[in-house]
Amino acid sequence: MKTRAAVAFEAGKPLEIVEVDLEGPRAGEVLVEIKATGLCHTDEFTLSGADPEGVFPAILGHEGAGVVLEVGPGVTSVKPGDHVIPLYTPECRECEYCLNPKTNLCQAIRATQGQGLMPDGTSRFSYKGREIRHYMGCSTFANHTVLPEIALARIRPDAPFDKVCYIGCGVTTGIGAVINTAKVEIGARAIVFGLGGIGLNVIQGLRLAGADQIVGVDLNPAKRAMAERFGMTDFVNPAEVEGDLVAHLVELTGGGADYTFDATGNVQVMRTALESAHKGWGESIIIGVAPAGAEISTRPFQLVTGRVWRGTAFGGARGRTDVPRIVDWYMNGKIEIDPMITHTMPLEDINKGFELMRRGESIRSVVVF
Amino acid sequence: MKTRAAVAFEAGKPLEIVEVDLEGPRAGEVLVEIKATGLCHTDEFTLSGADPEGVFPAILGHEGAGVVLEVGPGVTSVKPGDHVIPLYTPECRECEYCLNPKTNLCQAIRATQGQGLMPDGTSRFSYKGREIRHYMGCSTFANHTVLPEIALARIRPDAPFDKVCYIGCGVTTGIGAVINTAKVEIGARAIVFGLGGIGLNVIQGLRLAGADQIVGVDLNPAKRAMAERFGMTDFVNPAEVEGDLVAHLVELTGGGADYTFDATGNVQVMRTALESAHKGWGESIIIGVAPAGAEISTRPFQLVTGRVWRGTAFGGARGRTDVPRIVDWYMNGKIEIDPMITHTMPLEDINKGFELMRRGESIRSVVVF
Repeated sequence: MKTRAAVAFEAGKPLEIVEVDLEGPRAGEVLVEIKATGLCHTDEFTLSGADPEGVFPAILGHEGAGVVLEVGPGVTSVKPGDHVIPLYTPECRECEYCLNPKTNLCQAIRATQGQGLMPDGTSRFSYKGREIRHYMGCSTFANHTVLPEIALARIRPDAPFDKVCYIGCGVTTGIGAVINTAKVEIGARAIVFGLGGIGLNVIQGLRLAGADQIVGVDLNPAKRAMAERFGMTDFVNPAEVEGDLVAHLVELTGGGADYTFDATGNVQVMRTALESAHKGWGESIIIGVAPAGAEISTRPFQLVTGRVWRGTAFGGARGRTDVPRIVDWYMNGKIEIDPMITHTMPLEDINKGFELMRRGESIRSVVVF
Repeated sequence: MKTRAAVAFEAGKPLEIVEVDLEGPRAGEVLVEIKATGLCHTDEFTLSGADPEGVFPAILGHEGAGVVLEVGPGVTSVKPGDHVIPLYTPECRECEYCLNPKTNLCQAIRATQGQGLMPDGTSRFSYKGREIRHYMGCSTFANHTVLPEIALARIRPDAPFDKVCYIGCGVTTGIGAVINTAKVEIGARAIVFGLGGIGLNVIQGLRLAGADQIVGVDLNPAKRAMAERFGMTDFVNPAEVEGDLVAHLVELTGGGADYTFDATGNVQVMRTALESAHKGWGESIIIGVAPAGAEISTRPFQLVTGRVWRGTAFGGARGRTDVPRIVDWYMNGKIEIDPMITHTMPLEDINKGFELMRRGESIRSVVVF
């Protein structure tokens, strides 16, 4: 079939909206009509050429929602008409990782997914006879895409695509970091570094978890109002702190935070986050993706005196199990998404959406097909 | 009173055996006759001058066992005749840290202990009218010493001093890192870096915890036999590994270890330990004390893909509660100590004990008074 897609032909170039060829689903695969997709910093990271694993040409996008149109042989967990959210972290429920309750990093299709290919080692997309790669196993910047069955979360049919697509990455990553990775307890004190799309979801995750103090740290004072709306109790602008930022944060949280979260991807901030965690028990969770080759450092004494350094991917969520639950939370009003979706646009304007992101003017832009 | 002690008058100089003056116990304090004390690398670290917090002159030693001779006003938990092990990490059971189940780092007397003073800000030791500082709140290189009540674990009277003194530091640190900090599960795979006095206790802790694979890593092949005796299943000498050590260890453990332990204090080894932990769930625990200013580093991707970096002090043990239990384990044959105590000597020969340690010829030397 033919479908419209925003194709990344080359690193560093704008996406081009073209009609591509899409093969139907093979065994274990599903054809999905994408109804809406968010634009995420990870797409921009790859598009910019900074991602050492980026492959071109490719159809980017990994934060979508849509409807199942057709299933390949052997598919049993979804059927045509089902509403679904694509999962860049699949959940096969059979691999060593899925069977270990400590991780969500299903490895069933990792090797091929990393190469932008379907599990059988081929692509379903092409343009003028030339192969186009998939991206993060999703490629939601196409109006239609093919995914493995294990990479689809079936969600309730009354959830709006243009909002719940954000659960495909940002919402789940932020809220999941709090509830799955950190396992924050009621009454905890926390610090969130970076009040962008992920940081705001960490904040609402902390509110959901019953944290007593939620400190937000950002160099941009314009982030304050929105973060307060999601539950931030204290705002710190590092540019306005005299002296040592860690000392200031330790003082503000009465000895350091029980949990700190880096949602910046900056390795210096990751260190600050660790060191502003409470001696004896504070845990720091890295969410942000650092530039290639960047390293985190600290004195080992920080760990020997009880701090714990962790990371999280997709918020520790098992997508097929957890994503439908988060959609329910949204539909039931337990979490908010609407105010974070600051811009909506047709596919033709997707490059404008990336511009808004680069200029820091959007929290989330969503393309509606 | 007068008592014999090995005094560190200056950094980098041998200890001097002299008769010092010791004041009796004040309120909340206890006079203890030290019967035996181990020599630990931490004593050597301070004696060498490398410890930036080292204060001189001081009476070092923090791994002792002895008998209560006299108690000051208000002391209720021990009485004359009780057998005790001094605790460099006390357990007041009242501070914010003792009341938080996530940590063992009681802060009740931390500020004064760090300065080599009793909680009231003075020293009980002097020599020819000149103040001599305490060390780690213990000063077990004196035949008699005064400690706060909260820094004494009461133990069973039939336990031999010249063996259970080692529970005051090395045994508890190693075993505790496994059972309190890592909370290793039955069937786990583990790697231990450094097969000295701490590493051997990590190994027997892993055996106690029911680990399936216990890999020991050391540059010295002479460490192999003893480590096997304590439960090591695989020995790796990095000097004999062709290619990347991390890749070799990941291969050997079927994807990386569930738990890795650094017992070397070398920050490069700490990185290797983290990176040879299993993707998705491997935890790496830093036990060793690094040189002043040294830093650990890694790519944040290591944590984002599920590895956890932790540290431990005194094996996460709460001394008054846990040390008597470990003494019971020794007396009941659940753990071994005797083969690790390779040398016993009178106080007069304490400098020879440090020589043996520096040359790597001893596992543990114990001074018997």
